Formats: sequence, structure tokens, C-alpha cells
Amino acid sequence: MLQMPTMQNRETQLQSSYTPALTKTAILVIGGAEDKVHGREILHTFFNRSGGSEAVIGIIPSASREPTIIGDRYVQIFEEMGTKYTKVLDVRDRDQGNDSVYLDYVEECTGIFLTGGDQLRLCGLLAETPLMDRIITRAQNHEITVGGTSAGAAVMGYHMIAGGSSGESPNRSLVDMAMGLGIIPEILVDQHFHNRNRLARLLSAIASHSELLGIGIDEDTCAMFESDRTIQVLGKGTVTIIDARSMSYTNQSQVKGSEPLSIHNLKLHVLCHGERYDLNSHQALPLK
Amino acid sequence: MLQMPTMQNRETQLQSSYTPALTKTAILVIGGAEDKVHGREILHTFFNRSGGSEAVIGIIPSASREPTIIGDRYVQIFEEMGTKYTKVLDVRDRDQGNDSVYLDYVEECTGIFLTGGDQLRLCGLLAETPLMDRIITRAQNHEITVGGTSAGAAVMGYHMIAGGSSGESPNRSLVDMAMGLGIIPEILVDQHFHNRNRLARLLSAIASHSELLGIGIDEDTCAMFESDRTIQVLGKGTVTIIDARSMSYTNQSQVKGSEPLSIHNLKLHVLCHGERYDLNSHQALPLK
Repeated sequence: MLQMPTMQNRETQLQSSYTPALTKTAILVIGGAEDKVHGREILHTFFNRSGGSEAVIGIIPSASREPTIIGDRYVQIFEEMGTKYTKVLDVRDRDQGNDSVYLDYVEECTGIFLTGGDQLRLCGLLAETPLMDRIITRAQNHEITVGGTSAGAAVMGYHMIAGGSSGESPNRSLVDMAMGLGIIPEILVDQHFHNRNRLARLLSAIASHSELLGIGIDEDTCAMFESDRTIQVLGKGTVTIIDARSMSYTNQSQVKGSEPLSIHNLKLHVLCHGERYDLNSHQALPLK
Repeated sequence: MLQMPTMQNRETQLQSSYTPALTKTAILVIGGAEDKVHGREILHTFFNRSGGSEAVIGIIPSASREPTIIGDRYVQIFEEMGTKYTKVLDVRDRDQGNDSVYLDYVEECTGIFLTGGDQLRLCGLLAETPLMDRIITRAQNHEITVGGTSAGAAVMGYHMIAGGSSGESPNRSLVDMAMGLGIIPEILVDQHFHNRNRLARLLSAIASHSELLGIGIDEDTCAMFESDRTIQVLGKGTVTIIDARSMSYTNQSQVKGSEPLSIHNLKLHVLCHGERYDLNSHQALPLK
């Protein structure tokens, strides 16, 4: 499924040999409410990683019930930054996931951005469509940059938190799980993390999926997954990583409904701007 | 400072040789909003650990600005359970911390209960008074049971979270620290934990006090500290333990104000009813 690089991709590759940190592809998992007005650090990084002035960006606003408004807003932002071309892939029906115009555009794209909204709606419209399959393949082959915010972040894993509530002890009823898009299969994302009191729901999900790395991302904060399998943190808040590989016990098979869940012996890391996490060694890395 | 056991203590000791799990002294650290109406599990455990029908209980309502109302409420609860005697130590002025009637009563007490309210008020009125010093000594010598809920839980450590806010990434401005009563010096307590979104504030405190064990207690939940240095969980929620002994990095010395705090390589345990934590081995222990 590997495509021959287009001329533009080749240019990006040439650029990247000079300034790799600025232009290499990445997957940006954003905790929602990213700055769209002032420094726009996270969105500017997405723009740069998509090729900067050579970027060809596709906005997928399908999570939202107001796709025109939100799609146009991101088009305006990225055009102001100076992309070569930006277009909304306004999928409102699963059939459009086979649209040849959209499929051709994805071959030309250097960046795809998934907006916020409802993650179940986004997956319902796009999961396992030719369009999304092609985006995922190109992202996993490091040919394009993908960004997703809020609902667009939630869908990154193979498993996804579809909804839930907060203000309670961890319990099975606190979290609704569904299939995500599987762009980064091994992670389980929760967004608006400290802002909306979501530790209990992420732990409730991890108790049943201890093989996954829990990633809680605050608002205006981004966990940027690099092609070398490190995560770098951008933005004004923190990324909380819950590593259950050493979990020694959970009662999750014995409880149901709203009965409290226990989970023993997790590793917890809270990372700030510029700090990194190595997905191979499972080590948090301080700012150099 | 060890007192000769009174007749009543001797009776309790005799009883405890038959049913030690029910009557031995403990320190009950309660996350607030404990059930006062139905099963009253936590308060009933405090009653039993204070000696049951032989219990002589002192209520300290000094955290509250309505000490008469809250004091009387607990008197009624414990009298309904069948204590031998229950009395309010209604300290509203630091001079009362030297009151000979109260001091004599503490010598007869088998249980002391600290109500909710404002932890700074409680410490301001009672810290380092002869009355509180004597309570602490008797508790640490395992001569009496002590319980504290909400503000009465917050004061248990040598360091205490005096206040703060929530809904943000961990940062220094999120938490106000003060001196606690030091009944269990090595812990740092936060209460109403998952209910009020307090992970970030507890982490913000632990970043500056990684030598302390962070204990986040949910509402209607109790971390009961036994004389064998295990913690047992009671009630309907969870106790979250944050162990920073293996912390590999924090940026806390480099940031100020509301700049986000990082903290790498913590251990996290979430414990439910009946589960235990060993303060010597630092291991979480499943329900047997």
C-alpha cells in the first residue's frame, strides 16, 4: 500500500533532512480547547509538521453536528498560517468515505485534522471506510501528519472512551467503551483530563484494558507521537501517563455496575511542555 | 508518658484478646460525607474500635463554624450506637486547649472524633495545645482510637493541604499547604478525592513533598490505619495511594505560580473496601 512519493512529498523529505524536528510527520493528540487565537502553539506545530507553506491539509469535522462552522474555522486558521491548500472533507454519510474526490485529495494531503464533537459520531461515519483506512495507512507509514482534538483525540486508539461521567470513585458504570479508529492502537486516550476530573474514568477503562497505555491530556495540551516512538508534550497543561504493565491486582472481574474498582501497582507520570515519554523503554524523559 | 491502663481499658484489652479485629485501636481517616443515616459502616467501625458499649468518646467540632450543631449530631449518632459516654470537647479558643476538665476527659476517653469544617481553623485552635498533644500521644501509643472526617482527615499528616482549587493541570498555585496535627506524620491526605477532582492538587503537593505518601480518600470512604502499620479500606468508594519514593524527576524547583508541574515515575494504587496497604513494605494487598 506504500505510495510513490509525490513531488511535494519529496520536497518535504528534502526539507526534513535539514530541519527534521520542525517538518517531520507526527500524530498530534490534543486534549481539546487548544489555543486558536493567540500563540496557537499546538495548531502551529501541526501546520509545520504538515509541511508549513507547502502543507496540503484536510479538515475532517465529522465529529461535530456543526461541521460547516467548525470546518471553516480551522480552514481559516490554517490558511492564515500560510498553507498551500486547505480543504474540508465534509463527511456526513458513510458513503462519502468512498468518495473518489476525497480519496484523491488524501493522496495529495500532507496533514489531516480531526475536529472535536462526538467521538461515536466520528467513528460511526468514518471507521473502516476506504477514506479513513487510507488516512491511517499513510499516518502509520509516516507519510502524513495527523492531528485530532477532543473527540478527534479520543478516537486515536483501537479502544476508545466513548463517554462516561465523573465525580465518583472508579467503577464500571463510569465509562462507556467503544472501538476507536486505531491510528495508534496501543493507547487509550482521555481528553480535557484534569479540567473535567477524568482520572476515575480513565482508571475504570484501564482496569479492563491493562495492556493499553492510558494517556490523559489536559486542555490546550498535546501529546505528539513522533515516528521514533517517543511522545513529546506541547502546550500549556500536562499529559498524564498511566502504565499498567506492572499491575499486580484488580477486582474488575468481580465487580459490576457502580461497585468501586480497585487497581494496584500502576506507574504514573505527569509530563509538561517539552518533556518526552519513550514508548519503547516506557521511561519518562526530563526536559534536556 | 504512657498511662497506667484504667479498669475500662483493661476490660477493652481483655475483650481485644478475643476479638482483636473488632476492638483494637486504629486511626480512621475519612474522606468526608460518611453515611450518618443508614448502614453507618464507617462510624460504626469507629464506635467498635473505640470500645463499643464501653466506649467513652470525645467529639471535637472545632473545625466547624457551627460546632454546637455538628457536635450534637455526632453525639446523637454515637449514643444511638450505645456508647458508655459521649461528650463534645467544644474548643472555640486556644485557651480551652489547656482546660483541666477536657484534659481529664481525654484520659478517660477511648475514642476521639474530629468533625469536618475548615482544617486551618481546627489546627489554629488546637495544634500544639496540651489537649491535642495528649490526644496525639495516646493515639500514637495505640491507647485510643481517633477518627477524622473531611477537615478532620486533612489534619492527620505533619504537612496538610489547607485549600486549593481544581480543574487545572497540576501547578504550585493549585494548592495551599500548612502544618497539620501530625497524628500520622508520614502521610499527606486529600479528601472528597474523586468527587471533587483533587488529583491535580494532591500531585501538586506531592511534587514538593515526595517523602510523603499521598492518600486521596473518596467520600463515605475510610483509610483505617492499624497499629501493625497497615491501612485497611472501608466504605463505598476508593482510597488512592500515590507513592513518590521512586520519583525520577520533577520540574517543581524550576516553575512557579500556575506553570504546570511535571512529576515522573510515581506508583499509583486504587484500593477498595477490605483491601489493604502495608506501610512497611509499600505493597497494596488484595482482598483475601
